[in-house]
Amino acid sequence: MGGNSFGTLFRVTTWGESHGKALGVVIDGCPPGIELSEEDIQKEMDKRRPGQGAGSSPRKEGDHAEILSGIFEGKSTGTPLSILVRNEDVDSSPYEEMRDLFRPGHADFTYQAKFGIRDHRGGGRASARETLGRVAAGAVAKRILEQEDIEIISYTAALGGMRVETIDYGEIERNPLRCPDHQAAIAMEKRIKEVKRQGDTLGGIVEIVVRGCPPGLGEPVFDKLEADLAKALMSIGAVKGVEVGGGFGVTGMLGSQCNDSMGPEGFEKNDAGGILGGISNGADILLRVAVKPIPSIHLEQMTINAALQPVKFRVQGRHDVSAIPRINVVCEAMVAIVLTDYLLRQKALERR
Amino acid sequence: MGGNSFGTLFRVTTWGESHGKALGVVIDGCPPGIELSEEDIQKEMDKRRPGQGAGSSPRKEGDHAEILSGIFEGKSTGTPLSILVRNEDVDSSPYEEMRDLFRPGHADFTYQAKFGIRDHRGGGRASARETLGRVAAGAVAKRILEQEDIEIISYTAALGGMRVETIDYGEIERNPLRCPDHQAAIAMEKRIKEVKRQGDTLGGIVEIVVRGCPPGLGEPVFDKLEADLAKALMSIGAVKGVEVGGGFGVTGMLGSQCNDSMGPEGFEKNDAGGILGGISNGADILLRVAVKPIPSIHLEQMTINAALQPVKFRVQGRHDVSAIPRINVVCEAMVAIVLTDYLLRQKALERR
Amino acid sequence: MGGNSFGTLFRVTTWGESHGKALGVVIDGCPPGIELSEEDIQKEMDKRRPGQGAGSSPRKEGDHAEILSGIFEGKSTGTPLSILVRNEDVDSSPYEEMRDLFRPGHADFTYQAKFGIRDHRGGGRASARETLGRVAAGAVAKRILEQEDIEIISYTAALGGMRVETIDYGEIERNPLRCPDHQAAIAMEKRIKEVKRQGDTLGGIVEIVVRGCPPGLGEPVFDKLEADLAKALMSIGAVKGVEVGGGFGVTGMLGSQCNDSMGPEGFEKNDAGGILGGISNGADILLRVAVKPIPSIHLEQMTINAALQPVKFRVQGRHDVSAIPRINVVCEAMVAIVLTDYLLRQKALERR
Amino acid sequence: MGGNSFGTLFRVTTWGESHGKALGVVIDGCPPGIELSEEDIQKEMDKRRPGQGAGSSPRKEGDHAEILSGIFEGKSTGTPLSILVRNEDVDSSPYEEMRDLFRPGHADFTYQAKFGIRDHRGGGRASARETLGRVAAGAVAKRILEQEDIEIISYTAALGGMRVETIDYGEIERNPLRCPDHQAAIAMEKRIKEVKRQGDTLGGIVEIVVRGCPPGLGEPVFDKLEADLAKALMSIGAVKGVEVGGGFGVTGMLGSQCNDSMGPEGFEKNDAGGILGGISNGADILLRVAVKPIPSIHLEQMTINAALQPVKFRVQGRHDVSAIPRINVVCEAMVAIVLTDYLLRQKALERR
Repeated sequence: MGGNSFGTLFRVTTWGESHGKALGVVIDGCPPGIELSEEDIQKEMDKRRPGQGAGSSPRKEGDHAEILSGIFEGKSTGTPLSILVRNEDVDSSPYEEMRDLFRPGHADFTYQAKFGIRDHRGGGRASARETLGRVAAGAVAKRILEQEDIEIISYTAALGGMRVETIDYGEIERNPLRCPDHQAAIAMEKRIKEVKRQGDTLGGIVEIVVRGCPPGLGEPVFDKLEADLAKALMSIGAVKGVEVGGGFGVTGMLGSQCNDSMGPEGFEKNDAGGILGGISNGADILLRVAVKPIPSIHLEQMTINAALQPVKFRVQGRHDVSAIPRINVVCEAMVAIVLTDYLLRQKALERR
Repeated sequence: MGGNSFGTLFRVTTWGESHGKALGVVIDGCPPGIELSEEDIQKEMDKRRPGQGAGSSPRKEGDHAEILSGIFEGKSTGTPLSILVRNEDVDSSPYEEMRDLFRPGHADFTYQAKFGIRDHRGGGRASARETLGRVAAGAVAKRILEQEDIEIISYTAALGGMRVETIDYGEIERNPLRCPDHQAAIAMEKRIKEVKRQGDTLGGIVEIVVRGCPPGLGEPVFDKLEADLAKALMSIGAVKGVEVGGGFGVTGMLGSQCNDSMGPEGFEKNDAGGILGGISNGADILLRVAVKPIPSIHLEQMTINAALQPVKFRVQGRHDVSAIPRINVVCEAMVAIVLTDYLLRQKALERR
Repeated sequence: MGGNSFGTLFRVTTWGESHGKALGVVIDGCPPGIELSEEDIQKEMDKRRPGQGAGSSPRKEGDHAEILSGIFEGKSTGTPLSILVRNEDVDSSPYEEMRDLFRPGHADFTYQAKFGIRDHRGGGRASARETLGRVAAGAVAKRILEQEDIEIISYTAALGGMRVETIDYGEIERNPLRCPDHQAAIAMEKRIKEVKRQGDTLGGIVEIVVRGCPPGLGEPVFDKLEADLAKALMSIGAVKGVEVGGGFGVTGMLGSQCNDSMGPEGFEKNDAGGILGGISNGADILLRVAVKPIPSIHLEQMTINAALQPVKFRVQGRHDVSAIPRINVVCEAMVAIVLTDYLLRQKALERR
Repeated sequence: MGGNSFGTLFRVTTWGESHGKALGVVIDGCPPGIELSEEDIQKEMDKRRPGQGAGSSPRKEGDHAEILSGIFEGKSTGTPLSILVRNEDVDSSPYEEMRDLFRPGHADFTYQAKFGIRDHRGGGRASARETLGRVAAGAVAKRILEQEDIEIISYTAALGGMRVETIDYGEIERNPLRCPDHQAAIAMEKRIKEVKRQGDTLGGIVEIVVRGCPPGLGEPVFDKLEADLAKALMSIGAVKGVEVGGGFGVTGMLGSQCNDSMGPEGFEKNDAGGILGGISNGADILLRVAVKPIPSIHLEQMTINAALQPVKFRVQGRHDVSAIPRINVVCEAMVAIVLTDYLLRQKALERR
């Protein structure tokens, strides 16, 4: 249990380095009889592909997902799904000078401290390419959730300090930033171009909404639904904060303002964010994720090398201006994985 | 795995209901040879006891911790520690009217939806009394961390929307709110009294600082240190958000502002909050937790009963105005449990 | 995860030492709505109580099981069950001379080697009293299996080298040795008395039959049903071998003799022992367990002490002549725990 | 957790079907800095390859192991190792008639009962080819154990009812049956040819000896070393029994015969098989495994089809006469995986 698995009954294990031969994922515990094709996986993978907005890097990742096991005649068999993505278009030479250097904001120093050895090429295991396996597993989870009419929506709620003012779900797919506010999307694109010219990067906020989740999912007291959602989201590189429902906003409320009263038709508002006492309550699940700016800026920076000497350096290679919007589909994947796992755990408790 | 265990190598399992016979915890994986007494446990339990500030309820919980196993002649033996707290002073009658009623902001509805049965007395398993087991386990974890010179500090950073302006660690133990800003503490106490008179409740923010944590703890990619810390903290009732280091504040920064550059003496600032790529970097670990107002307000509220009919009701019994400051020691306990677990996991990887 | 938990969804954690304050078990993942009383537990505990045959020790263990949590108004609530047994009638003085001495056939040396410290009184954690927690958990598991019409039978198939020749289930409860062959039971009792006079001890074989198990339980490839049954049974002190179905007997057969052919009414014989490829096939599950003689003989023995010097000594205190028949109910408990766990895991896979 | 992972800290997950695109394994928790090449893996894989004795099938499995991740410049990095074997030489047509037919002694019926769907080609997931992943992981484990001077030896102790009479480790590698008794090996080869002509198959017994295991490995009370070894070995297809040390032989002994007394130089004999109370005692670990005859005989058999009608059929395709000796390296692999896991768990407990 080196930390590369997630989930109890729907168990996802990712593997692979940025500049290794391949990356992939094994999913153990996928229920049998789920219709699933490589296209279902590919569709989700394509959402995290670069080249989808002003801020994206030009690296052309074909990123073709190959299903190697667990599917027979178009359906899952209940045996492990192994999904593989070969690495292509890999040029490790820009990383050669970083072999003995700890880039600020990256995991170079900590991997070295932990393991005493590291694959420095392209960030190795700490690269955002690791999320390919997560997205592939998320695609499988989404197929299972679909059957229960559970839907996951994510969108960009803020970028570079600019927040959306209106939320129109229909708008999300209409702009490359996955922003539900048309005006905000235009302003954000402008800001991205500006920051890109400066060689700098931007952070932002992703919001995730789960619709159709039945009440009853979550296993208190430690495996509360919000606890595992927080773990799942915080395990994505670049994430520095997670909120459920009202989040930090409720800390200034009175109890009489924060309690969502309940009527025969359901909850009258949703500051709880769809979860009470660690268990889904049937309302929409609302999550908010803080994403830090990509640490690979193109400005000169100070750091130290393996000999602990100060070094000036400048990051080479191609990098996005922001992890948003590519991180959105990763957030969706992690939420889908958590919900699928809890759905299976809940089925184990119920009477047949 | 009904969700009542936490940790991989240092594994904590809590059990017990608010108005049952007893509550407790079993700790499996405590290393042998740790000096540990019932007083060590009791000292931490007393920190979460009510009656420690204007906002606390008058319930007198003796809450005596009894160690039933795992200790021989004052030292841990490597076998499971079982720690028991008998419930005393339990009056379940005020809860009788809530048997068929779902209190807003509580887990009444969701436990019923999940399990089809619930112990409604005092919140049952969803009661804050469940944290007794966590605090006892946290006390054990702290003894282990002490040996590695790792120290955990927590304090009240905001209450009822009022934030601290200065942070003086020395002040924390001097006021019952565990507030590091003397002036803010006075204002907060005043606000608590006011809100108490109104029959309402308050939320707030707890900050936690870990000092002395060596680099190398954390198991990416899913068991990132911040991911399990987020899960641990989000698994505490009333917590609606968790931040690491700069948290949501970094989402408006440029990459050039957010990167903590590294010199021969260490990091020049700490927006990362002591963790990079899921692994501790040797700097202080900084965590921030959003605590919602206690849902048990004394004002009249609307809700529904088990027959889904609307009901007006008023919470009876004794309740705190805020989960803060009692929740602080619970936060510390969870952080201590996570760090101990990762300390053991890291030892497993190292060469002897 | 110090090794004191068993199971995935129905998760059992035992704790406690022979001469400590108490022993017990926490069961996490018990489905809600199961009718369960302290009497249900006590009934099983009484089966492993000493004083049930010529070979048993005179220690009077009241061994009263107290349920501390997880039950409300006679039914399980889905929250953890904590069951406690206080230690009574404990005289540690006969063990004082064994503080620094490693008894042959016991775990004294290995606990010392592993942990560097051990509670030598009464065998500490390695005592057969540890199985109290297993039996209590087994009682809960049996209540769950009853609802699915699954029944577990165990009996003594051999003792001191004497094997049963006929198997009459009705006879099992009629003699204290739980032997299904009346004549063999008489001969075994005679042998026990003889060996007891000599101050020596006996081993034997326990057979377990599961009736009514539906096809489909088991999670290949590692969590094969027989694999976890083998682990469960081999985790009981004194067990040195486990067989499924034909066991070692099949190693001399031809394939044409060993294959159980299948007709419209089921399998024509059962050398498979009810399991194929790690999954139950609907036939009776057949298990056989080798139990070594109790190492606490009353004859003089040679061993070494903590200073690695040779020592002659003689075990003091009261001891059974054989772990059989008291171990039978422990075997049943472990089998019940495994089956319950796999029943829940299977439910998680099925369509609602 | 669909049952395809094994281990706690050194965690092995296998995937793949007999006639799918590929099979493989992911190893999470491999310590960093272990020198490891594809040749190390291939060497072990070749040991389980067919064509190594009179009883083997002529299928030519190239079975080339490709390491896809976790190795950098010849050393493990602490990140997951993914090892892939592409399926070649796959002819599924002989299996077409078995699509709706349940072969006796195979898992056809139980997979269908459990999952409601199965990949019938070549046994699907239940094929012995699944052990490729185990052997690859075992090769990694052996590299780790080598560094601690722990060695695992396995040999054929019986075949078709013929037992070895002498044990000469030097002989093992000299005959294709891995038999330590030269005369017995000749007789066994003769018996295999005879049975092959008859279209029938043979079972046998494998013995495994672990030399150099330090005292202290094992995590009682459930994760006893012998318990996990029993699970590991019983999880291999065709295994119907497992013994430790004296095994079933001790059931007829007196306690005074069974206790291994301990002198300053160690244990005077080894009926315990190197384990006391679930923890290694420093003596050789002795294990014995019952292997059933391969169920794919070439004689006509009776069974039923998916419509539950009786059917006469004859197995087509190429099959070994016995799982021995190919299963030996799989047994070694599983033992190596268990020991590595417990070695890491023990390191976590020790003082630095």
